[in-house]
Amino acid sequence: MSDSNPSTGTLKLAVIPGDGIGQEVTAEALKVLEVAAPAGVKFEPTRYDLGAERYLATGEVLPDSVLGEIREHDAILLGAVGGKPNDPNLPPGILERGLLLKLRFELDHYVNLRPSRIFPGVTSPLANPGEVDFVVVREGTEGPYTGNGGALRVGTPAEVATEVSVNTAFGVERVVRDAFARAQRRPRKKLTLVHKTNVLVNAGSVWWRLFQEVAAEYPEVTTDYMHIDAAMIFMTTDPSRFDVIVTDNLFGDIITDLAAAITGGIGLAASGNVNPDRTAPSMFEPVHGSAPDIAGQQKADPTAAILSAALLLDHLGHAEAASVIEDAAIADLAAREAGSTRRTSEVGDAIAARVQG
Amino acid sequence: MSDSNPSTGTLKLAVIPGDGIGQEVTAEALKVLEVAAPAGVKFEPTRYDLGAERYLATGEVLPDSVLGEIREHDAILLGAVGGKPNDPNLPPGILERGLLLKLRFELDHYVNLRPSRIFPGVTSPLANPGEVDFVVVREGTEGPYTGNGGALRVGTPAEVATEVSVNTAFGVERVVRDAFARAQRRPRKKLTLVHKTNVLVNAGSVWWRLFQEVAAEYPEVTTDYMHIDAAMIFMTTDPSRFDVIVTDNLFGDIITDLAAAITGGIGLAASGNVNPDRTAPSMFEPVHGSAPDIAGQQKADPTAAILSAALLLDHLGHAEAASVIEDAAIADLAAREAGSTRRTSEVGDAIAARVQG
Ligand SMILES: CC(C)[C@H](C(=O)O)[C@@H](O)C(=O)O
Ligand SMILES: CC(C)[C@H](C(=O)O)[C@@H](O)C(=O)O
Repeated sequence: MSDSNPSTGTLKLAVIPGDGIGQEVTAEALKVLEVAAPAGVKFEPTRYDLGAERYLATGEVLPDSVLGEIREHDAILLGAVGGKPNDPNLPPGILERGLLLKLRFELDHYVNLRPSRIFPGVTSPLANPGEVDFVVVREGTEGPYTGNGGALRVGTPAEVATEVSVNTAFGVERVVRDAFARAQRRPRKKLTLVHKTNVLVNAGSVWWRLFQEVAAEYPEVTTDYMHIDAAMIFMTTDPSRFDVIVTDNLFGDIITDLAAAITGGIGLAASGNVNPDRTAPSMFEPVHGSAPDIAGQQKADPTAAILSAALLLDHLGHAEAASVIEDAAIADLAAREAGSTRRTSEVGDAIAARVQG
Repeated sequence: MSDSNPSTGTLKLAVIPGDGIGQEVTAEALKVLEVAAPAGVKFEPTRYDLGAERYLATGEVLPDSVLGEIREHDAILLGAVGGKPNDPNLPPGILERGLLLKLRFELDHYVNLRPSRIFPGVTSPLANPGEVDFVVVREGTEGPYTGNGGALRVGTPAEVATEVSVNTAFGVERVVRDAFARAQRRPRKKLTLVHKTNVLVNAGSVWWRLFQEVAAEYPEVTTDYMHIDAAMIFMTTDPSRFDVIVTDNLFGDIITDLAAAITGGIGLAASGNVNPDRTAPSMFEPVHGSAPDIAGQQKADPTAAILSAALLLDHLGHAEAASVIEDAAIADLAAREAGSTRRTSEVGDAIAARVQG
């Protein structure tokens, strides 16, 4: 993280548009950020071309020198990472693990923050979703995402492949603490742990134990536990019951896409990969992927990227400017006419105009 | 498996009602099975009291001698397993892993079959689900369910807990083959692999490779791949696109609860834990759990258990009798009056009467 003061002065942004629609939506998020900059704040964006194109051209995913440079920024704005599905020149997971997850792990983004709301004017595929406003605190540096595991006799009928989910008291406690603190600050003060303690008993018991221990320090927070499978049902039939959810890396990946789907689509879901200790820059990105099928066509909705930029501002201490962006995006959603399609840049322009107006 | 002829004569059923509402719904499934028995077939049910109550009273989960006896049956009918959540006398997972999963693993139930349909008269929480009729083929003997893994320095701030997902070419190929054969027999002939190959690259690549290899033998089957997170979105916004889904043990657990939720609730979701090689009896059970909160109150819907009994009959070669049960259950659903509540036994009686009528 740079030494520049996060409140005023120059804020250094590492911008990684990535692949596919990541390029288009990031341009709009930057456009909106520029106009939303609070008085006395100047953004200094540095663009890093990382992703499928660079890998295919050079074989490089995330050179150490680039990682070192990215570290010296105040925050990172990321679009989306991932090439064409089943491109024979792109080994599966190479970009996800070598770039996106590498950034999350190296920069210790242990709080993967994913808010879900049904905004006015947005329709949910659920018949009666109720008032939905919750946030998922997904652990970001452990679980089945560690890349532990391996394979033996690959490509033969005797192949054995393993994936190891690693869960430490250190890693679980810090994200659980963050989730309790967040629940405490919200009006409903409710925290739900989602796991699969009845099957994954080793991982489950460290999550369960630390959830109970930290709960004792937050007597005002109501707690609740749900298996990941049961959470699918409640999320679909009664999403308004959730306030804050804390969960492991993989369950969080799964449940936040479901949450995005029921709250009006992945085109609206923002996220922050947060390092609450501020030992490295946090990274903000839409939940959606690179969508190679619609890339370069100005069809993608940049709202999720723009809302991610609002989370970035908030993280840097500019809560007011963050709300201005959020309000502008919400107003834009409410004003959308059914059936009308705007280009990616038109949505960005419209939101930028509301921020300025 | 017994040597009795599965087509006629005496069919030996091991009945494990289990815990909570498992007791009530199993009674209704048995009631319907009795009246649905094809000419020349007699069911000989043997009840095994296994579950929370037995464990709490005796410390026994599944004695080897009992497992040996169960093995000698033609099929198993199971209710639900699981005690009160967080009962301090029930270590987490002891019944799930020691009884339910032990049966699935010991009896080599590698095809966990979970059909999903929106039946006439049943409302989905989705606004426009379309015509939904798909089946999930969930792998049942590998993945993160193997109980591999462990924990170090338990209960201390230095605790490390692991869960190991084990995936073998042997285990993946056989379930993928079963799924292709099923897809081939269905009108739409479509098979979707659901995994997370971009993160779980070791497990993902053995799944991906064998999916491709077997696909080459089924040129008429259209194939498709989806990450588990993307599958959440498609399942919520466009469930009618699915025909057969094949997936790993944990992803299958998660996606089938979502499927149940969108097709009218977990009270209707049936399942079979199938050993297609017939080296041991297959086991049929509702997808729902023991629901201790409503246990003993005759509030549970026995439809899922009854539809599971139909799957049992079908597995034993009595496809016609199976359809009679299914049609009766569907007719009962269509005739339900909004807002009316019937007791568990009343629903069972009504379906049994339709089977007989
Ligand atoms: C692209 C992929 C590695 C990533 C994940 O699994 O975390 C994505 O799905 C997400 O949710 O940010
Ligand atoms: C009870 C539990 C162990 C089980 C599972 O996870 O398989 C259940 O959720 C199911 O889907 O049958």
